[in-house]
Amino acid sequence: MVKSSVKRFGILTSGGDCPGLNAAIRGVAKAASSVFGMEIVGISNGYRGLIEGDARELSPDDFSGILTRGGTILGSSREKPFKGRDDGQASDAEVGKDKPELIKENVAKLRLDALVVLGGNGTNTTAHLLSKEGLNVIGLPKTIDNDIWGTEVTFGFHSAVEVATEAIDRLHSTAHSHNRVMVIELMGHKAGWLALYAGIAGGGDIIIIPEIPYDAVSVARDIEKRRSEGKQFSIVVVAEGAMSKEEADLPKKERRRLREKMPYPSIGYRVAAEIQSMTGMETRVTVLGYLQRGGTPSPYDRVLATNFGTAAAELLARGRFGRMVCMKDASISSIPLSEVADRTKTIPADHYMVDTARLVGACFGDGA
Amino acid sequence: MVKSSVKRFGILTSGGDCPGLNAAIRGVAKAASSVFGMEIVGISNGYRGLIEGDARELSPDDFSGILTRGGTILGSSREKPFKGRDDGQASDAEVGKDKPELIKENVAKLRLDALVVLGGNGTNTTAHLLSKEGLNVIGLPKTIDNDIWGTEVTFGFHSAVEVATEAIDRLHSTAHSHNRVMVIELMGHKAGWLALYAGIAGGGDIIIIPEIPYDAVSVARDIEKRRSEGKQFSIVVVAEGAMSKEEADLPKKERRRLREKMPYPSIGYRVAAEIQSMTGMETRVTVLGYLQRGGTPSPYDRVLATNFGTAAAELLARGRFGRMVCMKDASISSIPLSEVADRTKTIPADHYMVDTARLVGACFGDGA
Amino acid sequence: MVKSSVKRFGILTSGGDCPGLNAAIRGVAKAASSVFGMEIVGISNGYRGLIEGDARELSPDDFSGILTRGGTILGSSREKPFKGRDDGQASDAEVGKDKPELIKENVAKLRLDALVVLGGNGTNTTAHLLSKEGLNVIGLPKTIDNDIWGTEVTFGFHSAVEVATEAIDRLHSTAHSHNRVMVIELMGHKAGWLALYAGIAGGGDIIIIPEIPYDAVSVARDIEKRRSEGKQFSIVVVAEGAMSKEEADLPKKERRRLREKMPYPSIGYRVAAEIQSMTGMETRVTVLGYLQRGGTPSPYDRVLATNFGTAAAELLARGRFGRMVCMKDASISSIPLSEVADRTKTIPADHYMVDTARLVGACFGDGA
Amino acid sequence: MVKSSVKRFGILTSGGDCPGLNAAIRGVAKAASSVFGMEIVGISNGYRGLIEGDARELSPDDFSGILTRGGTILGSSREKPFKGRDDGQASDAEVGKDKPELIKENVAKLRLDALVVLGGNGTNTTAHLLSKEGLNVIGLPKTIDNDIWGTEVTFGFHSAVEVATEAIDRLHSTAHSHNRVMVIELMGHKAGWLALYAGIAGGGDIIIIPEIPYDAVSVARDIEKRRSEGKQFSIVVVAEGAMSKEEADLPKKERRRLREKMPYPSIGYRVAAEIQSMTGMETRVTVLGYLQRGGTPSPYDRVLATNFGTAAAELLARGRFGRMVCMKDASISSIPLSEVADRTKTIPADHYMVDTARLVGACFGDGA
Repeated sequence: MVKSSVKRFGILTSGGDCPGLNAAIRGVAKAASSVFGMEIVGISNGYRGLIEGDARELSPDDFSGILTRGGTILGSSREKPFKGRDDGQASDAEVGKDKPELIKENVAKLRLDALVVLGGNGTNTTAHLLSKEGLNVIGLPKTIDNDIWGTEVTFGFHSAVEVATEAIDRLHSTAHSHNRVMVIELMGHKAGWLALYAGIAGGGDIIIIPEIPYDAVSVARDIEKRRSEGKQFSIVVVAEGAMSKEEADLPKKERRRLREKMPYPSIGYRVAAEIQSMTGMETRVTVLGYLQRGGTPSPYDRVLATNFGTAAAELLARGRFGRMVCMKDASISSIPLSEVADRTKTIPADHYMVDTARLVGACFGDGA
Repeated sequence: MVKSSVKRFGILTSGGDCPGLNAAIRGVAKAASSVFGMEIVGISNGYRGLIEGDARELSPDDFSGILTRGGTILGSSREKPFKGRDDGQASDAEVGKDKPELIKENVAKLRLDALVVLGGNGTNTTAHLLSKEGLNVIGLPKTIDNDIWGTEVTFGFHSAVEVATEAIDRLHSTAHSHNRVMVIELMGHKAGWLALYAGIAGGGDIIIIPEIPYDAVSVARDIEKRRSEGKQFSIVVVAEGAMSKEEADLPKKERRRLREKMPYPSIGYRVAAEIQSMTGMETRVTVLGYLQRGGTPSPYDRVLATNFGTAAAELLARGRFGRMVCMKDASISSIPLSEVADRTKTIPADHYMVDTARLVGACFGDGA
Repeated sequence: MVKSSVKRFGILTSGGDCPGLNAAIRGVAKAASSVFGMEIVGISNGYRGLIEGDARELSPDDFSGILTRGGTILGSSREKPFKGRDDGQASDAEVGKDKPELIKENVAKLRLDALVVLGGNGTNTTAHLLSKEGLNVIGLPKTIDNDIWGTEVTFGFHSAVEVATEAIDRLHSTAHSHNRVMVIELMGHKAGWLALYAGIAGGGDIIIIPEIPYDAVSVARDIEKRRSEGKQFSIVVVAEGAMSKEEADLPKKERRRLREKMPYPSIGYRVAAEIQSMTGMETRVTVLGYLQRGGTPSPYDRVLATNFGTAAAELLARGRFGRMVCMKDASISSIPLSEVADRTKTIPADHYMVDTARLVGACFGDGA
Repeated sequence: MVKSSVKRFGILTSGGDCPGLNAAIRGVAKAASSVFGMEIVGISNGYRGLIEGDARELSPDDFSGILTRGGTILGSSREKPFKGRDDGQASDAEVGKDKPELIKENVAKLRLDALVVLGGNGTNTTAHLLSKEGLNVIGLPKTIDNDIWGTEVTFGFHSAVEVATEAIDRLHSTAHSHNRVMVIELMGHKAGWLALYAGIAGGGDIIIIPEIPYDAVSVARDIEKRRSEGKQFSIVVVAEGAMSKEEADLPKKERRRLREKMPYPSIGYRVAAEIQSMTGMETRVTVLGYLQRGGTPSPYDRVLATNFGTAAAELLARGRFGRMVCMKDASISSIPLSEVADRTKTIPADHYMVDTARLVGACFGDGA
């Protein structure tokens, strides 16, 4: 056994489902137990399990054979333990104790030297806050949105890209056979990485992302231009966080208020309605939804998650806490959680992939 | 060359997109041209092309390399040429001539000895009506719904089953990780074959199909029963034509009227709302939609479509018209179009797959 | 609980790996335990476990979540317990007791009212022999070769077809880019179902199967003919049991002797060498091997295996022994094991799929 | 149109087949023609077409719809035009003119301002030599081996990883069901990237790569160790360029001589024989071969190839010749061909992925 700073730690997965979680858990656990001799405590359902003390020790049987499995063997939740505290409102936990206090008590009760948390922006922000409370925390960046600051890529992203691209490939058949406009709505509230990437991979004609507000007239014009060139169909890829130029100019609060009153199930339906009314072309919507989150991780994500997992075990062994494992310059590294917290990695306007998309003829509905 | 009754024929694809159309076109065309020396005229966009005379001769280049391609190289439409005539209303074709007359004129102009039509129930019913008008017609059963009378299976069905099953597999991850009820809505207006088949293949817990009206209370009870056995999640597979017992008791017209006023985008959302309100469990909906229609056909469908296609060429050669190619007793055969027209193959209540589903623990929401 | 003839039975999987085994085990076990209240004993590693008494009772946890998993949770072996006895040679089991006797003793010790065996031709033949010894046996037809007498299809077959077809699709790229002949060798010792089916699905140009002995000169001529038509590449699909016309004319023993001295790793390499030497075209071989046996079963096979599994449970409940579950006229049925034993379902010369293949231009290397 | 340094250029693909070639051609061509107004000449079959003057102008129809297609629409060959010249031997081209001279003549005849070449190490080395001859050349790094110096990744690599990983996943079923050692041989003559990557993604137990010479005794010991821990099966991933420690110590020429006399079809078979003889465990080999080269590119490779393609068009427009497009620090960049030529990117002994593999329990057969 290699000497380790940590003897026993807890591991949890928090936030939305994401391919690669089990591969990462396996990576952390195999390295931590076999190589560094640590004890591993699996915490159920994200931070909620830490608040409620719902946890149990993991044995090799628990993390054997899970490399290819979707979901998370630990369960997950969207619990945000600092939420009540941040805004001065009372916590909904038992009176007299707020959730972070309960977490610290349970960490002590479970005799955990450290925590490894796998999650997205919210999860890693919470990880940073727990660090500030004195806990030894290491974060792992997971999200299909690829929008975590400080890492070039997150695991789950490329698996979601594969699902989304396969869906676009399928829609091409129908678009072509029926001379239709097919709108596909992909995940991505704040960042359009998934829509941009799958849009290029699937040969999308229009790609609408949060970072580049769209103009319905421009979108319609782009589709009409294709029609005038003999292309009777178009594929429109829309991120769920897409917004029009008018919306982008509004204050955030006002924008949200208007969006809630939007007479469509989701933005994809609105874009489709705009296209159909402006071009007269038959337009259909597909919302990919939860299919982007499930299923076996792609080989890319299995490897990335395994790399991240073993790197986390090494940080534990060396006692380097308050950090998130990351990919930097195409190599595995780590970054302080303080730099990651409360930030989002969106697509810069001059990103090379935006250029690439335009150079192969895709439009962003921005009139460019 | 083998002697052939037909020297020159037209081929068209009609109705919704379906994997295997190109494989079937290739099967008809390769056999008809290379073996029987026939000339082949491709008609654009289903019966609409026949009404408008939009057609062109096909050469081997047109049908080479299309075996694996989704969609249809001929284009499709939902044109129903007898619609105006049936109900005594004026046809929307040029004054004085109804669409069937235009079709007969164009068949003569294009010098077609026969027609091969690939489509679903509507298409084959029209094929029968054209037969009655004196045209030589052969039908091929295509539909992802598998609901065409007179054939054990249609091409497109098993490809759609694969897409649907893969989707259910993906939802399992999320259902399990988040302790959720996941509702997935599949195609199937009148027949639940796709939902039943994919439901069994994906290990669905509740399967709701048009043939077995459901009772929301029973569905909720089945889910609660699972929870009481420690299964915190459930997968509910719903065919788009599913209906409640109350709806099933209404006259068809009344049922349709109520459905149009239903405050949900589709039946899957209603089922989800019923489950969530009755069980209190977090419930999410995925509508698979057009993804079921597109993409490369599965090997099963490529072979079935090729078998059907070459069988159609043989019927042409032997001058056996007014028939639809079919699968009967697991072998390729044909059946008079008159037997197929105006019928739908739904799931019999005592079908062995309903038994199978119940025997592995799936429920139909019917209280059984 | 529904009344059952059988209270407790053993289940085993025997012979080569095959997708759908776990789905079938689950089907038998869920129906048998939940609906009919039977106890289920899992026997390890096929008939070997029955000889050695290696078995344990299965609980619902054992067969939950295995529907999509490849392989078999019970393990398998190629043990043939009657082999020594049949030919009058001494059994290699303990002196004084032959293997069938040991099996009967262990069936008694384990208090099994019946046995369910999942396997191919050898397995079901053994099942018949055990029936004759007085045991209550039910067989299930599994094999990727689809060569079991008495059933229209076996589970595992369509999954293997998918793997093989995907491989042929991949080889098309390289064949086309490099103007090469690509030979792909598929499984199928006695029957060419897999090669014929995948050959049609993948658009193979030459399909060589055991049932239609080939002539290397004809194969070369067919490839040259393609080249003369401007098709610079060809895909040749070869079943591992393929043989030349000369070989086919030899007595079986002589044929086997010659084959063992064949200076090629397998028949695919010989066919490739013949083509390359006769046509001068660059020819490459791919042997698909074990990839055809592994991995998650296709939806078709999951459903078929589930249907077969639940049907076996019903036969147990009704006390109908000595039968193999089968697919007949596209419906689930059963057939006496005595009819299945010692037979093989090969492709009849006039099978419609042989016609289909020829009609789309595929050749069988038989000069036709 | 944006102003461009180049008005007309030739494009060719050289070397082995690789997913993403068509996506890259499309990227170059769409950007070059639509945005920069260049004329594009497609050269057939790699450098051979340039020697023979086999080329034709491409129109948008040629590069539309090819994003998802495997292979290369231009054809390929392994022609190395400088081969004869390098070693002072006479060229096999027409007497009096060597191939590079013919290439320069044809570039002039075809009025090409520049060349874009897509290929691996050999291709880009030739590109450098043509640059030194005065031609304007831009290289694009394609290879499933990922072994091109100067770029973090090549297109084709991740598609091959997916095929290889899926194969390993399939073998797991059989290995587990039959208690076998399964050896899978992957491509990679000089570099083990594919074996390492797919080995981690597929959970391989032993990974044997050219960079880490193996010791058969160590391999056997690792497998025995697994058996002693109750793991009755093992997956061994072998790169085709793997070598034993004894071989690694030999001079290269001697090593090649011995390898040619090796009594096995390929290294995978030798490793399997060594394992079987040392451990007595049943061991089986699968050689994945050409399946790694064909088929539709993965979304990752479609995007990478598109990025590389449009970047090449921009280099053309800006007149930056003698460079290869590359991925550097996870961004698109370019590097002088002179730095790339005659080098190979192998796996450094201290690469983080070697550590990762060891940390999750994989062995390299090196006794470590």
